[in-house]
Amino acid sequence: MPTVDLNADMGESFGPWKMGDDAALLQIISSANIACGGHAGDADVMSATMALARDNGVGIGAHPGFMDLAGFGRNRMSVPRGTLQNQVRYQVAASVGMARSLGTSVRHLKLHGALANMASEDEILARDLYEAALSVAPDLIVMVLAATAQQDAVQSLGCKWAGEIFADRAYNEDATLVDRSKPGAVIHDAALAGERMVKMVKAGAILTEGGQTIPAAIDTICLHGDTPEAVDIARAVKSSLQEAGIALKCFEGHTG
Amino acid sequence: MPTVDLNADMGESFGPWKMGDDAALLQIISSANIACGGHAGDADVMSATMALARDNGVGIGAHPGFMDLAGFGRNRMSVPRGTLQNQVRYQVAASVGMARSLGTSVRHLKLHGALANMASEDEILARDLYEAALSVAPDLIVMVLAATAQQDAVQSLGCKWAGEIFADRAYNEDATLVDRSKPGAVIHDAALAGERMVKMVKAGAILTEGGQTIPAAIDTICLHGDTPEAVDIARAVKSSLQEAGIALKCFEGHTG
Amino acid sequence: MPTVDLNADMGESFGPWKMGDDAALLQIISSANIACGGHAGDADVMSATMALARDNGVGIGAHPGFMDLAGFGRNRMSVPRGTLQNQVRYQVAASVGMARSLGTSVRHLKLHGALANMASEDEILARDLYEAALSVAPDLIVMVLAATAQQDAVQSLGCKWAGEIFADRAYNEDATLVDRSKPGAVIHDAALAGERMVKMVKAGAILTEGGQTIPAAIDTICLHGDTPEAVDIARAVKSSLQEAGIALKCFEGHTG
Amino acid sequence: MPTVDLNADMGESFGPWKMGDDAALLQIISSANIACGGHAGDADVMSATMALARDNGVGIGAHPGFMDLAGFGRNRMSVPRGTLQNQVRYQVAASVGMARSLGTSVRHLKLHGALANMASEDEILARDLYEAALSVAPDLIVMVLAATAQQDAVQSLGCKWAGEIFADRAYNEDATLVDRSKPGAVIHDAALAGERMVKMVKAGAILTEGGQTIPAAIDTICLHGDTPEAVDIARAVKSSLQEAGIALKCFEGHTG
Repeated sequence: MPTVDLNADMGESFGPWKMGDDAALLQIISSANIACGGHAGDADVMSATMALARDNGVGIGAHPGFMDLAGFGRNRMSVPRGTLQNQVRYQVAASVGMARSLGTSVRHLKLHGALANMASEDEILARDLYEAALSVAPDLIVMVLAATAQQDAVQSLGCKWAGEIFADRAYNEDATLVDRSKPGAVIHDAALAGERMVKMVKAGAILTEGGQTIPAAIDTICLHGDTPEAVDIARAVKSSLQEAGIALKCFEGHTG
Repeated sequence: MPTVDLNADMGESFGPWKMGDDAALLQIISSANIACGGHAGDADVMSATMALARDNGVGIGAHPGFMDLAGFGRNRMSVPRGTLQNQVRYQVAASVGMARSLGTSVRHLKLHGALANMASEDEILARDLYEAALSVAPDLIVMVLAATAQQDAVQSLGCKWAGEIFADRAYNEDATLVDRSKPGAVIHDAALAGERMVKMVKAGAILTEGGQTIPAAIDTICLHGDTPEAVDIARAVKSSLQEAGIALKCFEGHTG
Repeated sequence: MPTVDLNADMGESFGPWKMGDDAALLQIISSANIACGGHAGDADVMSATMALARDNGVGIGAHPGFMDLAGFGRNRMSVPRGTLQNQVRYQVAASVGMARSLGTSVRHLKLHGALANMASEDEILARDLYEAALSVAPDLIVMVLAATAQQDAVQSLGCKWAGEIFADRAYNEDATLVDRSKPGAVIHDAALAGERMVKMVKAGAILTEGGQTIPAAIDTICLHGDTPEAVDIARAVKSSLQEAGIALKCFEGHTG
Repeated sequence: MPTVDLNADMGESFGPWKMGDDAALLQIISSANIACGGHAGDADVMSATMALARDNGVGIGAHPGFMDLAGFGRNRMSVPRGTLQNQVRYQVAASVGMARSLGTSVRHLKLHGALANMASEDEILARDLYEAALSVAPDLIVMVLAATAQQDAVQSLGCKWAGEIFADRAYNEDATLVDRSKPGAVIHDAALAGERMVKMVKAGAILTEGGQTIPAAIDTICLHGDTPEAVDIARAVKSSLQEAGIALKCFEGHTG
């Protein structure tokens, strides 16, 4: 029976400001990418979100980004490489220790925002950041955007990894995401999103807008939860997968 | 032969701003209290300082404080207790993981600034903060201001600890520090500082201004390094202790 | 005909994080206390909120607080007095200039959170902070918590001021607020809140829980808008006042 | 008699961290570019530096940059244009109001770090940022890197401006700076720096490495002060100019 993991970003509140419905998502997903205080999250939010993930049996991931709270890690920044590596180390370290204080642990790593985008275009950058994270926690499973430079990086590193696709985004012929400004780039129809995910998981491939089939390691599907609509899509995707006989469980990661 | 440890705060630079002569101090001391990004320090500074401590064979300590960079952790803040504990967990976690990425580890904990002052007056606060730190790293040796509520806290917790006195401060009859505004409160004479430390270590006691002898666990002596004069005092204290046959080595911590 | 102003705190979003329903409140109130980037708000939020206040004909106020985003200015902090004054100057200056860039201006000042609480208990602190604000913008009308040390401060300064009461809080016999932990301290019933405000404005006095009448300058009523319920109370208070023949308009301030 | 202004960046300390010898520089220069809390500076530092500039009769400039303290505004960032304009407004506003509280005023604007570099390559960006600053303080004289896109921007805006060259940098044939990594890019010889400045001011032109003469508006010369050596160069340049009969005074700005 095919299996797949469902993941979502969370723990992105800060101080008095709330973001997303983490409690609802944690009843749907199997892996949570939890902000580490760089682009979002603070010590209270990290602790509360990790505890809730633990209580829901959801795998915990460190989700580091550019250390730019005001910009939520969405601005590209020309931070010197060594500094950027140390910032990833710092955030992963904070995650690992906070999880330990809650009697649990960090299983995976996923880059956030502009940092993730840049790493999906630049294998050397991706590798440098993953090496930095692994220097803190060598057993992390690195979650990569399937069929991007992120995947090239984990394969050249030889570390454990899991490939990710998006539930609500259309794909170009080269496996990149259709630009958000184009019609059909973002899928708002919950049923359609579910149907597409079933097809891709069964095919073991990304299905492009043009009808191509690009073989890919589809270990996990990224869901969003920042709007009520997004939570509905997440639930629909989960139901569709289950009805299609696809088991939902946390990825174990693989090498090669 | 009596032994004692010498410690100093460091890693308190931030971004482009330098503070202290850490390289000079690391040739004098045996334990370094390294800022964790709360009141000072950033990922680069933490990494560089820890690497230098490791290379000098100096024990590494996490040095958390109020998360108030602009105030350098010197402002007292009414942060809710649970939040404060999570902030200590976050900082200790970052330290522990950063040390691991450098092939070394964090041996001890020392509170910084206003947080340390408040904990020296409030056993419950001290205990809450130490418990938070130990929830991340259970083997930490907690460095306490000897004969204060910090010491009461570690003794009631039953954790490993080390008692600390100051090389350059005069003591009141109740073992508290003479207020900085009073004459003689701060010792600027390097020879005098050295002589006093030899006497106190040999006596196993704090010697007060009024001539009292207050038995105390003197496991480590706090030196400063933020001025050239301070580095001179640090060297003088070290020489005096060595000439008096007192061995300088990193504390092992004790319970009870 | 008696008149009164209605005010609310706003512009307290930050980066990607939203707080409150400012657009709804701006259709109810006559004075807006807009965060200045200290405890909340950023340049975008300040600009957008000021523009919306301007378009709604609502008076703009600077709302400075402790520079502690993570704590939302709710933590008391022992910031040195001169630094605190400069932080108030900085925030007021930013407000004044941002308003000017939008073709409008800042009319009043209201302290936020822990800083406001501390100033309501300490006339010297209040005066120092008001003087700081007035050194940047001498024509500001200072909004004070009626019958507290804040009021003493403006009266001793001789500056223009306006007295404020809360729509949803019960008062003790000494005109302080009933502690939130006590039953009846916070009024959740919209009709009751409206009725009380009508009585107090007509009486020109704070009416205490014990039935006392404490004469007070009631120039403005503080409304909240951080929950849908709060917006409903705000609307109800406005309706009750209008039905009772009390005109709602921005205060002009007075001295003495 | 030809005249020229000497300027330097300052007010770049932050909290407990000191940077540069502002007091020494203020005895040499005629215009000070004072950080506004974005890339450096805080309310205390701004106030103290402005007061010192005022007391030395030195013109005060706002010196905004990317709001990235940890990176000191040196990282290029893809901040959305409108946000960037508001961040410039915020910083200029804070400067203008802080100066007013000290009985003085802000005369000029100079962009900092990566923001300045980007604006020197992109006329539209430069114009957008200058318009933002002028929306807060319409009388500002905009200091531009002579013969770059910054100059194109002020000329197309029609605002008052002053052209700037560097005392310690060599110029390429297209009036850009020789890359720091190349030999001779930075001039460390105080006498040579002075001599070059005399030649350029007298010529009213940038003299390139290849021997070209590129006519330029040389209204002000940028000096550095972050090292003792830099202060020596600053003094030497001033002496050379004075000995050559060039009067040193604050620029008045010009249009066109």
